[in-house]
Amino acid sequence: MRHLLSAADLTHDDITSLLNVAEEMHEVQRRPIKKIPALRGRTIVNIFFEDSTRTRSSFEIAGKWMSADTINVSAKGSSVSKGESLRDTMMTLDAMGVDCFVIRHNSSGAVAQAAGWVNAHVVNAGDGQHEHPTQALLDAYTMRQHFRDAKVADTFRGKRIAIVGDLLHSRVVRSNVLLQRTLGGLVTLVAPPTLMPTGVEHWGVATTHDFDSVLADADVVMMLRVQRERMSGGFFPTAREYAHEYGLTAQRLAHLKPSAAILHPGPMNRGVEISSEAADAASSRVLNQVSAGVAVRMSVLYHLLGGEGAA
Amino acid sequence: MRHLLSAADLTHDDITSLLNVAEEMHEVQRRPIKKIPALRGRTIVNIFFEDSTRTRSSFEIAGKWMSADTINVSAKGSSVSKGESLRDTMMTLDAMGVDCFVIRHNSSGAVAQAAGWVNAHVVNAGDGQHEHPTQALLDAYTMRQHFRDAKVADTFRGKRIAIVGDLLHSRVVRSNVLLQRTLGGLVTLVAPPTLMPTGVEHWGVATTHDFDSVLADADVVMMLRVQRERMSGGFFPTAREYAHEYGLTAQRLAHLKPSAAILHPGPMNRGVEISSEAADAASSRVLNQVSAGVAVRMSVLYHLLGGEGAA
Amino acid sequence: MRHLLSAADLTHDDITSLLNVAEEMHEVQRRPIKKIPALRGRTIVNIFFEDSTRTRSSFEIAGKWMSADTINVSAKGSSVSKGESLRDTMMTLDAMGVDCFVIRHNSSGAVAQAAGWVNAHVVNAGDGQHEHPTQALLDAYTMRQHFRDAKVADTFRGKRIAIVGDLLHSRVVRSNVLLQRTLGGLVTLVAPPTLMPTGVEHWGVATTHDFDSVLADADVVMMLRVQRERMSGGFFPTAREYAHEYGLTAQRLAHLKPSAAILHPGPMNRGVEISSEAADAASSRVLNQVSAGVAVRMSVLYHLLGGEGAA
Repeated sequence: MRHLLSAADLTHDDITSLLNVAEEMHEVQRRPIKKIPALRGRTIVNIFFEDSTRTRSSFEIAGKWMSADTINVSAKGSSVSKGESLRDTMMTLDAMGVDCFVIRHNSSGAVAQAAGWVNAHVVNAGDGQHEHPTQALLDAYTMRQHFRDAKVADTFRGKRIAIVGDLLHSRVVRSNVLLQRTLGGLVTLVAPPTLMPTGVEHWGVATTHDFDSVLADADVVMMLRVQRERMSGGFFPTAREYAHEYGLTAQRLAHLKPSAAILHPGPMNRGVEISSEAADAASSRVLNQVSAGVAVRMSVLYHLLGGEGAA
Repeated sequence: MRHLLSAADLTHDDITSLLNVAEEMHEVQRRPIKKIPALRGRTIVNIFFEDSTRTRSSFEIAGKWMSADTINVSAKGSSVSKGESLRDTMMTLDAMGVDCFVIRHNSSGAVAQAAGWVNAHVVNAGDGQHEHPTQALLDAYTMRQHFRDAKVADTFRGKRIAIVGDLLHSRVVRSNVLLQRTLGGLVTLVAPPTLMPTGVEHWGVATTHDFDSVLADADVVMMLRVQRERMSGGFFPTAREYAHEYGLTAQRLAHLKPSAAILHPGPMNRGVEISSEAADAASSRVLNQVSAGVAVRMSVLYHLLGGEGAA
Repeated sequence: MRHLLSAADLTHDDITSLLNVAEEMHEVQRRPIKKIPALRGRTIVNIFFEDSTRTRSSFEIAGKWMSADTINVSAKGSSVSKGESLRDTMMTLDAMGVDCFVIRHNSSGAVAQAAGWVNAHVVNAGDGQHEHPTQALLDAYTMRQHFRDAKVADTFRGKRIAIVGDLLHSRVVRSNVLLQRTLGGLVTLVAPPTLMPTGVEHWGVATTHDFDSVLADADVVMMLRVQRERMSGGFFPTAREYAHEYGLTAQRLAHLKPSAAILHPGPMNRGVEISSEAADAASSRVLNQVSAGVAVRMSVLYHLLGGEGAA
């Protein structure tokens, strides 16, 4: 692996290796002294063109726990035109001799483009409405742990995964669909017609506007954040109506299988796409996802940077 | 100790232990190579909802010198409503496995509330107009050093401490009053009626509007910053008049005992609450306070994080 | 060396030593594991009153690769009046016990002034339109490497260096002129009358408004960034006209000696002061300059901080 740009680039073996190393990293994370020398002397630049405290912190912690040097660059509000600025900034930092860029950018495709300009490794930490592959990996990690805890087979083949909510503006859904295509999970996308991505019929997944129809069979229900701004955009009428049709309410929670996992990439809008009953249910894996995020990112960074001339 | 939220939570033994370890840390601070392995593998998140270069830097340096990993989160200007944002941000970072949060927040009580949401340790680095316990500890440390240098008893019992200025908007005064209640210092609060906190009669301290009346007996004079914005708020008429009534002028300086210490939490308004003569006097301990700040914060972090499973 | 404030303060021996140690640091930079213990336990504060991702990152990486603790302070937009704020911030951080300040400030002379207030070492990372000595050192490093690669004598004495463009607003040109005064390079400044600094006749360098006249003899052509804002300021009529008169166009490139080096401190305005043909030519050393920047800054920090009580 040279870069991690898209969940589509990962083979089944890649994913298995990433998840297995993430399990070892999860052990490190549970120790009182969280420090391994794996990436000592490697330099990771977190370059975020959009604010994201949680994703940036997760990568920064992952790097530091593996003894890497981490540099934060907040590129928001740069005065130069975005295209030029990204290329110039990337090439300059690359020439300094950094080993890896972790990039969040508001334009779909910008991260893959940036990877073409540099010698360093590149990790896509979210580009526009396009992809967020480490999120899909941490979701898969969380599901696998859940399957084990629920004493069901810990493979994805044939598992029914409902992804519900604002699919149109979500990079999380795209990366999950691509990853599950390789892993064999059966994804059903659930959204009102206004929030269903155009061209979704070519994604190779089932779709429905009826959330209730998928509840009984789902092994995983992944709720996506609905942004209140969308209301004024006409995508849905009111938060209350949205919650009624597409929220994981207490009523819907009661129709899930006891072994079904509830996921949410956060931050949650309690009372809109997810009720507090569901958010705090025993089967809610929301904080496990956050915890898995660090372990998975350690694994990703280790796969990209760990082998090269390490002592 | 699990958290450091309020100076009121500290017993006399706690304070003595914190100040004594701070002395050892002060030795580290004076070495050319400032690095001890005490907190290797621990992760400290500095999460500041208000800007404060000096306090954030002091904690960051304290963590780094003890080999901790430090992460900065500037939470200013977040778009979500503050209450939700704080809880969500805290729980997310906590789930990543960090060991300690150092929190500055503009709302009184927010830090104690945050401590209820997380498994990590929490240090209050200033919450609204409520408390700033590490400031009170560094003040106590500075006073004790001063007592020793002045060859007077290095205990607080019976020492006369005048705290002068904008008491109404100050978290520093509250933490100092609470700490001295345990240590036995005799605090007198000095302010115009408009800047005296409501309910101060229940604080168990003497109060006066007459600064001159406390000068001759004071062992410590702690001057608080007056913010020029308060003038337009009607709290006092002009900077000049304020300086005349409540400033530590050259004239007042001459009435202090030779052994009296001058403290100020900074940044100073020279010519308003403190004259340059007083700020630069031999008995001024303002820069010692800053220096003590790092040592005291190292001690606090060590007390909270040092023992757990350390090698 | 106590501070690095001006290129004028460096003797020939200082410069030679700085460039030679930078060569050793450049070797470290090429290793897979970029980490030496030289500055372990030293604390470097990067305090930037102007944004500069590239310069700040370059110093931060330099410090981290030598195992120093690095602290970033972004002082932009502070509410207090700049003069007070700088002094107060500097003295406070100095009292904490940091070892070195790397300062970028928008006022000419502010960094030298700051050096007078502190015990720590100070590096000028650019002050107003005054100086940027590490830029001049990395330019000299890059030139020397180029001379060696081009198999010409690797000394500066007698080398013809044309510096072209917005000299009026440039701190880079001042530091280069001062450094070359010591090194013996023959500098010619090339600019339209509106962008030629007042008093340039006392700088001891040749000047011309005719770029074409210097092309054939130049050993180094250093192109400076022209800021598009200057157009509205009346300094030059249009970008196109500027490019025609003072840009390193493909036509002018053809008139350079094959061994002439092309430098630019970045970021480049392609199509204005430099054509893509020149920017991407084999003799372009622009990315080498960036790479040299880290090595030179490691060397500067090592000269200032390396010797003191090191184990």
